[in-house]
Amino acid sequence: MAALTGRDLLSVADLSIEELHHLLDLATQMKAGTLTPRCEKVLGLLFSKASTRTRVSFTVAMYQLGGQVIDLNPNVTQVSRGEPLPDTARVLDRYLDVVAIRTFDQADLETFAHYAEMPVINALSDREHPCQALADIMTVGECFGQLEDVTLTYLGDGNNVAHSLLLAGAMVGMNIRIATPAQFEPATEIVEQAQKIAKGKSEILITHDPIQAVKGAQVLYTDVWASMGQEEEARTRIPLFQPYQVNEDLFNHADGSAIILHCLPAHRGEEITDGAIEGAASRVWDQAENRMHAQKALLASVLGAI
Amino acid sequence: MAALTGRDLLSVADLSIEELHHLLDLATQMKAGTLTPRCEKVLGLLFSKASTRTRVSFTVAMYQLGGQVIDLNPNVTQVSRGEPLPDTARVLDRYLDVVAIRTFDQADLETFAHYAEMPVINALSDREHPCQALADIMTVGECFGQLEDVTLTYLGDGNNVAHSLLLAGAMVGMNIRIATPAQFEPATEIVEQAQKIAKGKSEILITHDPIQAVKGAQVLYTDVWASMGQEEEARTRIPLFQPYQVNEDLFNHADGSAIILHCLPAHRGEEITDGAIEGAASRVWDQAENRMHAQKALLASVLGAI
Amino acid sequence: MAALTGRDLLSVADLSIEELHHLLDLATQMKAGTLTPRCEKVLGLLFSKASTRTRVSFTVAMYQLGGQVIDLNPNVTQVSRGEPLPDTARVLDRYLDVVAIRTFDQADLETFAHYAEMPVINALSDREHPCQALADIMTVGECFGQLEDVTLTYLGDGNNVAHSLLLAGAMVGMNIRIATPAQFEPATEIVEQAQKIAKGKSEILITHDPIQAVKGAQVLYTDVWASMGQEEEARTRIPLFQPYQVNEDLFNHADGSAIILHCLPAHRGEEITDGAIEGAASRVWDQAENRMHAQKALLASVLGAI
Repeated sequence: MAALTGRDLLSVADLSIEELHHLLDLATQMKAGTLTPRCEKVLGLLFSKASTRTRVSFTVAMYQLGGQVIDLNPNVTQVSRGEPLPDTARVLDRYLDVVAIRTFDQADLETFAHYAEMPVINALSDREHPCQALADIMTVGECFGQLEDVTLTYLGDGNNVAHSLLLAGAMVGMNIRIATPAQFEPATEIVEQAQKIAKGKSEILITHDPIQAVKGAQVLYTDVWASMGQEEEARTRIPLFQPYQVNEDLFNHADGSAIILHCLPAHRGEEITDGAIEGAASRVWDQAENRMHAQKALLASVLGAI
Repeated sequence: MAALTGRDLLSVADLSIEELHHLLDLATQMKAGTLTPRCEKVLGLLFSKASTRTRVSFTVAMYQLGGQVIDLNPNVTQVSRGEPLPDTARVLDRYLDVVAIRTFDQADLETFAHYAEMPVINALSDREHPCQALADIMTVGECFGQLEDVTLTYLGDGNNVAHSLLLAGAMVGMNIRIATPAQFEPATEIVEQAQKIAKGKSEILITHDPIQAVKGAQVLYTDVWASMGQEEEARTRIPLFQPYQVNEDLFNHADGSAIILHCLPAHRGEEITDGAIEGAASRVWDQAENRMHAQKALLASVLGAI
Repeated sequence: MAALTGRDLLSVADLSIEELHHLLDLATQMKAGTLTPRCEKVLGLLFSKASTRTRVSFTVAMYQLGGQVIDLNPNVTQVSRGEPLPDTARVLDRYLDVVAIRTFDQADLETFAHYAEMPVINALSDREHPCQALADIMTVGECFGQLEDVTLTYLGDGNNVAHSLLLAGAMVGMNIRIATPAQFEPATEIVEQAQKIAKGKSEILITHDPIQAVKGAQVLYTDVWASMGQEEEARTRIPLFQPYQVNEDLFNHADGSAIILHCLPAHRGEEITDGAIEGAASRVWDQAENRMHAQKALLASVLGAI
């Protein structure tokens, strides 16, 4: 399998199925310490939203590769003075080797990738969160020793995280069920794309019934009900989302071996109970750690270091 | 002497007397360039207060060890979104090798250290400033060639700096005198802890009389009268603290060999006069430099690099 | 040619003519990859203005030298608490190996350089932008294979960029023409200094006539009409500066081989048209890239690494 040298990752579906499996394999080897590529390159982080996990996991991944990081917080760059994105992209392309962008608008990623020759990585957009999905799938593989036929149920908002899970899950042959309140379903075109990838061999289910969705599932997955930029909606969402809370009752409908994932930060008492996130089935800290390993594999690959 | 591998430093008294001497010895060798350990690890800085000396001295210390640093300014992390500290601690523990925390609340340090396996360093809390005390004691040792029986008088607010000086000074056999206005004495339990360490062999004096405190002292030490977060109190404090100002008059009561220390930043005309900080007895720039050497020794030791 | 070990660069005229040529030669070799010095030192960035190009180009330059960078954003340092600059300078001097400062006031640079022994680099002040001029002259050399007798016309505000171009251009034997509205001419003492350097051998022209200034020029150069801190003046400036806009009409008066430079960020429709900056004559992205190479040469030289 060749490296993904020079490639962008704007959607998890920018990868072929073989490439996705290859990245997961690299990440597993890196976590085990059996693969330690070196890469003295510079990663830029261009984040227009607050971040802990994403910023730290990318930074440490790059450091462990022997590389460097520059944090282009928009508050301290010209981006805040209204420079057009194509100009910023072309200038940064002369200085940096790879960039990870966190943005409210997927179109910004596409514009940046069009104007920059270096690899551009989606570090979270309104539409997708591909690096999170890589870490999630990696965590499922660690827990069950396989991906095919594992059923993952995502409960809550049909957001960027749900989108990338739908696509990545379909690519590796998992059954993906998404249970959301009405009006909060994932985007139709993403669902159709996932169904096309799954080709009827694995299940893609979109439902409003949390109990049906959880029945027999091996993975329960949730995310905050109101993402960054939606805090004002949070209050009105709570009653609508309450039936989708990951708690002990709901968990009892899942498979006996089921695990609980959450991409964090968690709001205990809202989308997840303290008992669920702190209980024996929780794998949320391993999942958070895997962000680093998955992103290290991705960086090494797009930089041609492996 | 074994390294302090994996150890936290929340209070200077977390060290044994032997360990404190050992750290000072390592710092001195590192400053001299005769000890140059390498350590390709990652330090996180989690500071909820502004900082120059602390941030830069930790960062450069880590760089000189061959390591890396990530600055987790709360303004750009999820910490600002109200994620519980135990969650932040567990996640960062998966990415970082050591963390230095600057916080308004010593309890935050204890919580973080409880949830994280990596070493946690107190980079300034409401209660203590142990890294400052290491640098201070190191500076005294450089100036006098010994620590035992040297008398250090701290004038001003009985704050975190005074606390760590009391404990560290008692541990190395110095006489520590603290002169403060009434109501601004150091915490009783810290004074008692210092007296217990001193075992009556060295002097621990808490007084409201600045002249008595300074008489025969070899080190005059002061700090700003209102620390960060207390700026609103500054105006009312000035008349109360005026008699404790380190100036030429007060200095004349000290030992002929006396030096002046200040942990900076200095407010000339308040806790110290321009003549005192700029005069021949001032060692404040050496003291600032020693922050870096002391912290480098500490980092290398808790990371097991020496 | 000896290295500039330990030297400050507050004005481009701090360099001798030989030193300027030497730096340009080093930068060209570094860009070509034929000179790759290593320097494990620490650069501090002390910027009181927003920045993309300057911050990123300095940071990546230092990384490529094998060095480290600490970003001393005043918002997160004690500088914001009103510590006197001489104190900050003396403390940072104990930690850092070199510092690049971006300030509204050239006097801050001079104060800092007076109190710090390490090299101090002007990364943009109200008076000069010497690192930009180094990159600009390097770009002209790349395009024309020579510097002597090349005519560069700067149009717009007689600001810091214009000042450094006047001095650097005069030093390398270029003809420098500055076309500005009345009241926006470059500082008289800078013009006189440039004339003294040029000694009548090359042309130094200050004019209000943009067409006269452009006639036969090989380089058209412009900058935003209102720099950072002058945004409120922007509206009133627009009609005054309109005749100095770099557009297709004005470009037709230049030499047939003419190129267009801009130090960015660009405000299309104000100082430059979209057609001009995106057209075949534009070299603005190469110019931006050369910031990094020029600064890398400068850093390596003042740090004694070459």
